[in-house]
Amino acid sequence: MQKEWKDTPALLLIDIQKGMDEVDFYGGERNNPEAESNAALILDYWRQNNWPLFHVKHCSVVPGSPLTEGLPGNDLKDEVKPRDGEPVITKQVNSAFIGTDLKQQLDAKNIRTLVILGLTAEHCVSTTTRMAANFGFTTVVVPDATASFRSKMLNGQSIPAQTVHEISLATLNREFAEMVPTRDILQSRLAERG
Amino acid sequence: MQKEWKDTPALLLIDIQKGMDEVDFYGGERNNPEAESNAALILDYWRQNNWPLFHVKHCSVVPGSPLTEGLPGNDLKDEVKPRDGEPVITKQVNSAFIGTDLKQQLDAKNIRTLVILGLTAEHCVSTTTRMAANFGFTTVVVPDATASFRSKMLNGQSIPAQTVHEISLATLNREFAEMVPTRDILQSRLAERG
Repeated sequence: MQKEWKDTPALLLIDIQKGMDEVDFYGGERNNPEAESNAALILDYWRQNNWPLFHVKHCSVVPGSPLTEGLPGNDLKDEVKPRDGEPVITKQVNSAFIGTDLKQQLDAKNIRTLVILGLTAEHCVSTTTRMAANFGFTTVVVPDATASFRSKMLNGQSIPAQTVHEISLATLNREFAEMVPTRDILQSRLAERG
Repeated sequence: MQKEWKDTPALLLIDIQKGMDEVDFYGGERNNPEAESNAALILDYWRQNNWPLFHVKHCSVVPGSPLTEGLPGNDLKDEVKPRDGEPVITKQVNSAFIGTDLKQQLDAKNIRTLVILGLTAEHCVSTTTRMAANFGFTTVVVPDATASFRSKMLNGQSIPAQTVHEISLATLNREFAEMVPTRDILQSRLAERG
């Protein structure tokens, strides 16, 4: 069924940065290599519709992080490179709402619906989505435009990236966000006003 | 090794409410039945040490929720019943920081270290812990004083409560919080000032 937005949805592209390619730093294995190309398709669709969008960039303060400001890894990836005039929110923590004016910018534009995608599903996408939902935004996550890295149980046992991804999304689903895949996002449209 | 707190830790007891016993409402299966008794031991330890603590109670606005205000399920469980004078933070969303003055109360008391436990690991404990860490608090989660309910993959496949619990904690571990089990919390002490 075609997705209809009740009000104009804003797109949040979370941390799609070159440094995320340092897979060994982030656990040694990543799933869903299509996340970036799906994000690029959705970004194009937003530009065509002239809907609001926000690039979010992580400027890590963790020593050794590839996302540190000033390093090449801090740059947003070419597939989702911001155009002149598109807002870029910079943050130092997982949530795009902490230490930034994102909430104020959304409120100023009377935005009530957010579409969230990017990296990683378990950390920054998840934390931003949880806060967005708890602030009262209607929140959509695009599962196949997110990805996860391998993690470890408390007992040291490895958790495959695909499992981290699936369970992170399952935990967000319904409680915090509706899950809408890329193909449906690309056919979505704003409901006509009666 | 004995855990030493650099500054006085505050305890957050999240949503340990009678309505959480409605297991069928929450997915049909729960893990770690010892969560409440461990929470009670830690609460007693906090009272003995006269360290600050905050009961957090969820007043759900989801239709049919056993945690709705006015229902018996909204009450905190007997094991962790607040004593007169102990602060109770009431919230309507997952995060104990949204729609409440918890942050202001912590800042006013100059609290910088939080110990978090309660229900559920994947929803309210996780969301509160993520925000606490992103606000800059030194954050500890007590894994065996939290529990999870069964969930579902996006494809409908069931995820056992134990798996939800383990992966939720794994995702919080190191990125957002240190994991310290009940037995170590009960031997922890405030570092002596030099």
